Amino acid sequence: MGLTHLDEKDRPKMVDVSDKNITIREATASGIITMSKEAFQNIIQEKNKKGPVLQTAVISAIMGAKQTSNLIPMCHPLNISAVNCDIDELDQGFKLWVTVKVTGKTGIEMEALTGTSVGLLTIYDMVKAIDKGMIISNVQLEKKSGGKNGDFQR
Amino acid sequence: MGLTHLDEKDRPKMVDVSDKNITIREATASGIITMSKEAFQNIIQEKNKKGPVLQTAVISAIMGAKQTSNLIPMCHPLNISAVNCDIDELDQGFKLWVTVKVTGKTGIEMEALTGTSVGLLTIYDMVKAIDKGMIISNVQLEKKSGGKNGDFQR
Amino acid sequence: MGLTHLDEKDRPKMVDVSDKNITIREATASGIITMSKEAFQNIIQEKNKKGPVLQTAVISAIMGAKQTSNLIPMCHPLNISAVNCDIDELDQGFKLWVTVKVTGKTGIEMEALTGTSVGLLTIYDMVKAIDKGMIISNVQLEKKSGGKNGDFQR
Amino acid sequence: MGLTHLDEKDRPKMVDVSDKNITIREATASGIITMSKEAFQNIIQEKNKKGPVLQTAVISAIMGAKQTSNLIPMCHPLNISAVNCDIDELDQGFKLWVTVKVTGKTGIEMEALTGTSVGLLTIYDMVKAIDKGMIISNVQLEKKSGGKNGDFQR
Amino acid sequence: MGLTHLDEKDRPKMVDVSDKNITIREATASGIITMSKEAFQNIIQEKNKKGPVLQTAVISAIMGAKQTSNLIPMCHPLNISAVNCDIDELDQGFKLWVTVKVTGKTGIEMEALTGTSVGLLTIYDMVKAIDKGMIISNVQLEKKSGGKNGDFQR
Amino acid sequence: MGLTHLDEKDRPKMVDVSDKNITIREATASGIITMSKEAFQNIIQEKNKKGPVLQTAVISAIMGAKQTSNLIPMCHPLNISAVNCDIDELDQGFKLWVTVKVTGKTGIEMEALTGTSVGLLTIYDMVKAIDKGMIISNVQLEKKSGGKNGDFQR
Repeated sequence: MGLTHLDEKDRPKMVDVSDKNITIREATASGIITMSKEAFQNIIQEKNKKGPVLQTAVISAIMGAKQTSNLIPMCHPLNISAVNCDIDELDQGFKLWVTVKVTGKTGIEMEALTGTSVGLLTIYDMVKAIDKGMIISNVQLEKKSGGKNGDFQR
Repeated sequence: MGLTHLDEKDRPKMVDVSDKNITIREATASGIITMSKEAFQNIIQEKNKKGPVLQTAVISAIMGAKQTSNLIPMCHPLNISAVNCDIDELDQGFKLWVTVKVTGKTGIEMEALTGTSVGLLTIYDMVKAIDKGMIISNVQLEKKSGGKNGDFQR
Repeated sequence: MGLTHLDEKDRPKMVDVSDKNITIREATASGIITMSKEAFQNIIQEKNKKGPVLQTAVISAIMGAKQTSNLIPMCHPLNISAVNCDIDELDQGFKLWVTVKVTGKTGIEMEALTGTSVGLLTIYDMVKAIDKGMIISNVQLEKKSGGKNGDFQR
Repeated sequence: MGLTHLDEKDRPKMVDVSDKNITIREATASGIITMSKEAFQNIIQEKNKKGPVLQTAVISAIMGAKQTSNLIPMCHPLNISAVNCDIDELDQGFKLWVTVKVTGKTGIEMEALTGTSVGLLTIYDMVKAIDKGMIISNVQLEKKSGGKNGDFQR
Repeated sequence: MGLTHLDEKDRPKMVDVSDKNITIREATASGIITMSKEAFQNIIQEKNKKGPVLQTAVISAIMGAKQTSNLIPMCHPLNISAVNCDIDELDQGFKLWVTVKVTGKTGIEMEALTGTSVGLLTIYDMVKAIDKGMIISNVQLEKKSGGKNGDFQR
Repeated sequence: MGLTHLDEKDRPKMVDVSDKNITIREATASGIITMSKEAFQNIIQEKNKKGPVLQTAVISAIMGAKQTSNLIPMCHPLNISAVNCDIDELDQGFKLWVTVKVTGKTGIEMEALTGTSVGLLTIYDMVKAIDKGMIISNVQLEKKSGGKNGDFQR
């Protein structure tokens, strides 16, 4: 199988999905941010108070998912029908999950991955005054369903 | 040191930088995407022809850096004065670098990190028909200079 | 009934509308701006010439309605199928109306309200050199139809 | 004084501020949303837990302020140097305040007013499943300083 | 036939397409940029290497097509299902083609024309250090199909 | 002189303007749209009434100029300090002019050209129900001043 986003002259194109079926499609992505103990404690402490760092990350992840087709050049604009974002506490970091749904002709994994990246970048931004060495990792598709190419499950 | 993007009531705010000095500030971030041998070969083969996958990633990274303040809620809008993006070939993946400069009152690490993330997501999008299991990792600040808080070097 | 935009952990989410029916939905909102006699006279005089202040307000209201899902964090992106904007002359002010239609799975009242707010803010902007004390009020949903939750009529 | 955003042919224009001085400019706007007792109770209860409705409103107000020049046709793009948003509890509603600062050549009242409007619209969106009759009022400039035209204080 | 984007009071409106049929619609536009021999040679030489000037133009044309409803005030937002862009070499210039498809209720010629314009402007931007006298011409609809008003073929 | 927007590996980059002087820079661009007699008459007739077709074009040109750095990949974000747009009547068409000013480190010709293109595309959109054969031509830089590379005058 080749690179579907290139035409016969190797020019980028937005793949033609006109003839694909409209189905409910869903995708979940996740990613991790790790940080110093001090940075982590700052978030955890305010987290006990339903803290704004993680709330801001959740909101930015949802809003970021909506910007996917403006950021990723060959992505189709999609009318997302649902986005939600969850955050798990790790040892010295957080795992952020984004699940996106659409009723449409093309998959929605890029929206899930973009939302995840924006949410993690927002955590970085909110805490960077304490720790600039934070690392974002394991941004990956967890699962995907809908569409004729079959489901994906990591 | 506390969370500068929160006010005394723990509400998010955009930090006041009105009184900070205008200096030349520069930041470099990097990140990695790893993939299957088959996906990697597809990019490498067209890369010999100055391939559009990596060209598209470079362009999206530069354009993505310009969208930072629209994506990251507490980021200041900045008039970026330079962005460039480079990509190194790894064993089964790529390392993408983004360097951003600004003459302004606040640091520009979020622009470098956002550009990096968007560039890597674009590689994922261009190649996902071959491999949906690709992983984005090590998105991190490499160095930063300018501003009164001192330089950062990983 | 509870807050549908929050999940069980009280995190914001974009409500899942995947299973809702596609119907024609319509919403009308309105709002008022009041101002000094001098400011009002300036607009009225040029209004006789099909003045640009109100024309600019109408255009910005229509364009603003299209930006709703970029501005309101939990709003679904919608392919608006019609927007129109009308402006009535009041004693020392204007009443601006925006009606929006969509064929989709979710209501469109936020688009009508956002368009109304942007249109009124534009009048403020165009006239603020004369009167900075203008007040925007009564931004409200007038009516709404379509969807299983029944119609709304103020 | 006439309408500065119109040229001699009555066409809209973006006022030329090239020759104005660069000064620190600050503006505060406010606005009110009133609602049913039931809607109010829902927000208040979750507010005791640092609730996401008001947090989402604060974040959207800050992000909305950054979109001002994309929404209001004749507004200059500005590199906002600070935004913060506060919310007071009223009897059956909320008063939302937005303060914006910039070091630049033109005033920033539109950013404060736009942020206020977007924040209030977000409260409407988050609570509209309970009460569609909510009303946004008294969106107004509270004060403004910097610039040669003198300060404004309501 | 009159101006459909104006209402009975001559105010701009977004035409109501709620009752139109959903069909596959396609449009192709083209445009030309002409330049000095020196500028042309610079692009041609790097074109032999799959040069970034034309690659950047192709990508910006596709991304620009997606921004149409944000730029053209009365355009409906559309979920484009395909965009591709091709570039022909002329004597001292280039002809750029954009084809766009949508399954929807309204035509897509503005997306094709906007993508074409953005692609040509990008060539100008990439080469303007060599030649500021370049001219963009013949931006026009080539063909259009789908919809009840019949097909268009230049 | 070579292509400044490419690095030594022929990758696109945003040119570094950090070391350039801040000066007042100004650029004027123009472009033409030609159309059928019927289409022209429709605009002219309403033009006598300060018609909304040309008003909408003017507003979209100004707003489009502000979107330049989001559309043209290698353009720097700039805080435009003035935009105005004028339209001349031709035999069967219109000539649209956009002048833009900025106090900054880099030229503003792309903003003038982009505003011109968006204004002309808006005229096309407003009148396309009457004439789909309209042609946009002669989109070109008229003059440019400021900056060390000297002035340009067509």
